[in-house]
Amino acid sequence: MSRNLGFAIIPPAAPPAPESASAPPGARRQAGEAAPSALAPGRPRSVVLVGMPGSGKSSIGRRLAQRLGLPFLDADAEIEAAAGQPITEIFARYGEPHFREGERRVIARLLSGPPVVLATGGGAYADAETRRAIRDSGAVALWLRCTVPVLLPRVSGRSTRPMFLNQDPEAVLNRLMTARHPFYAEADIVVNCLDESPETTTDRVQAALEGHAMPARLPVALSANPYEVVVGEGLLARAGGLIAPVLPARRVAIVSDASVAALHLPTLRAGLERAGFEIRASLSVPPGEGSKSFARFAALMEELLAAGVDRSTAIVALGGGVVGDLAGFAAAAALRGLPFVQVPTTLLAQVDSSVGGKTGINLKAGKNLAGAFHQPRIVLADTGVLATLPPRELRAGYAEVAKHGLLQGPLWEWCEANGARAVAGDPEALRHAVLESCRLKAAVVAADEREESPEGGRALLNLGHTFGHAIEAECGYDGSLLHGEGVAVGLGLAARLSARLGLCDAALPGRVEAHLAAVGLPARLADLPRRFGVAALMGRMRKDKKVRDGALRFVLLRGPGEALTRGDVEPALVEALLREAGAAD
Amino acid sequence: MSRNLGFAIIPPAAPPAPESASAPPGARRQAGEAAPSALAPGRPRSVVLVGMPGSGKSSIGRRLAQRLGLPFLDADAEIEAAAGQPITEIFARYGEPHFREGERRVIARLLSGPPVVLATGGGAYADAETRRAIRDSGAVALWLRCTVPVLLPRVSGRSTRPMFLNQDPEAVLNRLMTARHPFYAEADIVVNCLDESPETTTDRVQAALEGHAMPARLPVALSANPYEVVVGEGLLARAGGLIAPVLPARRVAIVSDASVAALHLPTLRAGLERAGFEIRASLSVPPGEGSKSFARFAALMEELLAAGVDRSTAIVALGGGVVGDLAGFAAAAALRGLPFVQVPTTLLAQVDSSVGGKTGINLKAGKNLAGAFHQPRIVLADTGVLATLPPRELRAGYAEVAKHGLLQGPLWEWCEANGARAVAGDPEALRHAVLESCRLKAAVVAADEREESPEGGRALLNLGHTFGHAIEAECGYDGSLLHGEGVAVGLGLAARLSARLGLCDAALPGRVEAHLAAVGLPARLADLPRRFGVAALMGRMRKDKKVRDGALRFVLLRGPGEALTRGDVEPALVEALLREAGAAD
Repeated sequence: MSRNLGFAIIPPAAPPAPESASAPPGARRQAGEAAPSALAPGRPRSVVLVGMPGSGKSSIGRRLAQRLGLPFLDADAEIEAAAGQPITEIFARYGEPHFREGERRVIARLLSGPPVVLATGGGAYADAETRRAIRDSGAVALWLRCTVPVLLPRVSGRSTRPMFLNQDPEAVLNRLMTARHPFYAEADIVVNCLDESPETTTDRVQAALEGHAMPARLPVALSANPYEVVVGEGLLARAGGLIAPVLPARRVAIVSDASVAALHLPTLRAGLERAGFEIRASLSVPPGEGSKSFARFAALMEELLAAGVDRSTAIVALGGGVVGDLAGFAAAAALRGLPFVQVPTTLLAQVDSSVGGKTGINLKAGKNLAGAFHQPRIVLADTGVLATLPPRELRAGYAEVAKHGLLQGPLWEWCEANGARAVAGDPEALRHAVLESCRLKAAVVAADEREESPEGGRALLNLGHTFGHAIEAECGYDGSLLHGEGVAVGLGLAARLSARLGLCDAALPGRVEAHLAAVGLPARLADLPRRFGVAALMGRMRKDKKVRDGALRFVLLRGPGEALTRGDVEPALVEALLREAGAAD
Repeated sequence: MSRNLGFAIIPPAAPPAPESASAPPGARRQAGEAAPSALAPGRPRSVVLVGMPGSGKSSIGRRLAQRLGLPFLDADAEIEAAAGQPITEIFARYGEPHFREGERRVIARLLSGPPVVLATGGGAYADAETRRAIRDSGAVALWLRCTVPVLLPRVSGRSTRPMFLNQDPEAVLNRLMTARHPFYAEADIVVNCLDESPETTTDRVQAALEGHAMPARLPVALSANPYEVVVGEGLLARAGGLIAPVLPARRVAIVSDASVAALHLPTLRAGLERAGFEIRASLSVPPGEGSKSFARFAALMEELLAAGVDRSTAIVALGGGVVGDLAGFAAAAALRGLPFVQVPTTLLAQVDSSVGGKTGINLKAGKNLAGAFHQPRIVLADTGVLATLPPRELRAGYAEVAKHGLLQGPLWEWCEANGARAVAGDPEALRHAVLESCRLKAAVVAADEREESPEGGRALLNLGHTFGHAIEAECGYDGSLLHGEGVAVGLGLAARLSARLGLCDAALPGRVEAHLAAVGLPARLADLPRRFGVAALMGRMRKDKKVRDGALRFVLLRGPGEALTRGDVEPALVEALLREAGAAD
């Protein structure tokens, strides 16, 4: 009976939200919305301050609330008010699990109304369910990170902090930091606090909030294994905090390639270690398509198992499509399936290969003929890393954005207006390109996870690829032609074929070719530095995986946003088209 | 309007089943029931005669019905009665699809009542939906197979057979046979009819019915991919007819090993070809555990793709556990997943490895560390092939039957009473052992498809395997100790450990060891022709896949039918047990 009188069931002491308030802006954010800043005017979010005892959550919080014009709330005070007894007593009488449960409910209630600045108790954010409640509320979690020397004078000798009573405060701090910092690392923003005035710290906190773009989260709504694609800048540095909530344990093996590892592995490692991850292995394969081989796959599997990965170890792929495909298949096969995380570092991988669960390696008989559908638990598309890409690779990746544009419609208009900015490396344009591409791909994949839809579905994502794969195969995967360049030419040819069949406006092929040329991509066979044979290309296309019962299948366009598959195109028509495009007899 | 007056919607002309009839014995058979004979007294089934025009379906059917004391019905006559017009007219006025739909409904109605002998039109059983309706009704389909010379005089010059009108009857017969025989091959029983008197043919039909044991069908009730384990004799010869209904196309690649292929491949090939299957490849790997290697897996994948398997080609594994595991993983990985069929030929594979979807190969770091959960579309456990097994292999497979007995309870009593008959090769005992083992395994797998249940579930199937795997590993997989022999010793030790922990009756270990010894299996470490070290065995067990956070996990017994997992057994206790069992310090 006495347990039932615990604070958790006493009605809220905080005043109810005024009825005149507009739709609560702190309510769960809409899936996939892009929030340009954590403090964007017009749609303020609640700010939740987390950190160690003495980190200044209350004193900074009060100042911050005043500056933002938001109410300030202290979670511990609200809990004591709701329970009608001090926290020390709740702890003593009911135990910590009971306290945490009540704390979680109070925090969830406080965040369900209009935006506030909320200071939490030091242990609140170390509780997984409370972190989830804060995340789900749409609030921004901000960690005031302090060192022991900064904290020590603040907590020493305070009788109001029972955990420091009759203890060596430094030892207590060290113990708590070891236990809690990995969880604090899941906060959206981290501000390193020095021994400075509260006003100065508040300045820096406010600046961090204003400068912080919340990453967008796109749901891939699969029935069995739904997951999110997170798009934003600086995700590698926060990787541990972002992926921990969807993994069974804070234990990973990283697979990368030598070039990518040199640029980004230290950031990723630090981002993982900050959240307390054990990195059981960090393996690297040679860059390039050659690594999608059986020999490399076998070696990688042996290395992973020799490193002691177990059923709770997640495989993290850091790199482009080759690394993602190879590591993903290894994750699918090791111990019959390990959790998998995609951290794509190329534009091509961010907009295409990292989303959808297709993994695999190449056989002598063709590309991607061995593999698995193995969905990642989460995809971190850190658009900040795209700045390190060679321009040609960025352009090639953009071909898939243009393809998504043609499939989606409005995105094509955006491409024509803004594509050049994206290939020039403009961060905002790249972010939009990745976000909208992933949004389209996520929707298509969710509707047809295993490419089983006879028409449409995932098959539509092959727009430009029947031609593109044939051109690529003729070039021999030697790096002379990038996949995206083959796709670009393929998009041009698919548009020409669509026009020839009377499916689309006669002007569409010219429009497609003009845009691709404007961003520096090849759009016609003649743009490539070698000649192709009609018969050779037709032969390649007949071996395409999409061929059914011997009939070539093409994805065609009625216009931007209106794609269809056709299996009845006359080979003679395709041959004539290739001939006109410059292929030789 | 005229279409709606077609026969299909006219109420049945056949008299309704008398109300006094008991529950219709022709109703859909209960899943997994073992029907010793198609004509077992007390539970007669309907008999559906299928075959070419002129094969004698009506004349044999009438005689058969009289002998069995069942009503005889002619589907074509019933259709004409229901439609109020001749079949030729239904065909002419409404077309074949409409006729087939009506035919299917009439046949389903005729088979939904008390048992009958039913002669069908020549095209009825060539219709997939009608075949399904007949199968689902629980009736026995019997094909009267005739050659052209037998049929030709019977169909020539008959004006009542419109398809022969003004046609060369031989050409018509050949065309029809090519088209229909693959579908007729799905019949449960095939009787080859010679140019003989109807009475003689009826004798042979009746004998075939009486001698035919309907295979048992055990459902593996997975939510996403439910399938059946078919247990019976002579399944290889009927393989095509049995597997066709669950595959996207009549196209397979067979994987076997050299020893098994020599014995059973011709029968399987014939059984597939009879049902019109294209065998796109028939590949063989060396017998033995060594074939579960990356090198063999890679070679097999290349061979399969080079042979032109496509997404509709099923991989058929013909062999023991090695072939099933290897071919299953290849099926999972080829084109990211092909349909898969298990045709296990060893007792071990029939009672264990072929059911449940675990596939994989061995790595240097351990057995089965790379693989996939890839469920078969169907398992054909042909108990007839067990007669070809070497006695030692049959005994080793029986260890898993005994394990299932200990997990299940009543099956253990059966083992103690009848196990010796099974290992001696008695067909009826083997059939029971396979059937009951598969029934148990199917239930466990359906409840825990991917071994995710933390306690119980599939983990219980590892009874005896923590010890068994360690003993096997110490012997080095060189063939000196078979897996089942290791499991047998493991069962004895698991029982001893259970008794030591006070979980079960002190007499159980003795009972387990006595039974295993009685069937010729090793039941104690001392029964093996080599000595083991305590430390070595403990080291092997610590590397077991079941180990979690460093703690050994054992499946233990409270008694037959009552198993549990324990992760808190003191290593010192296990060491003492091994020492007493004869392991050296």
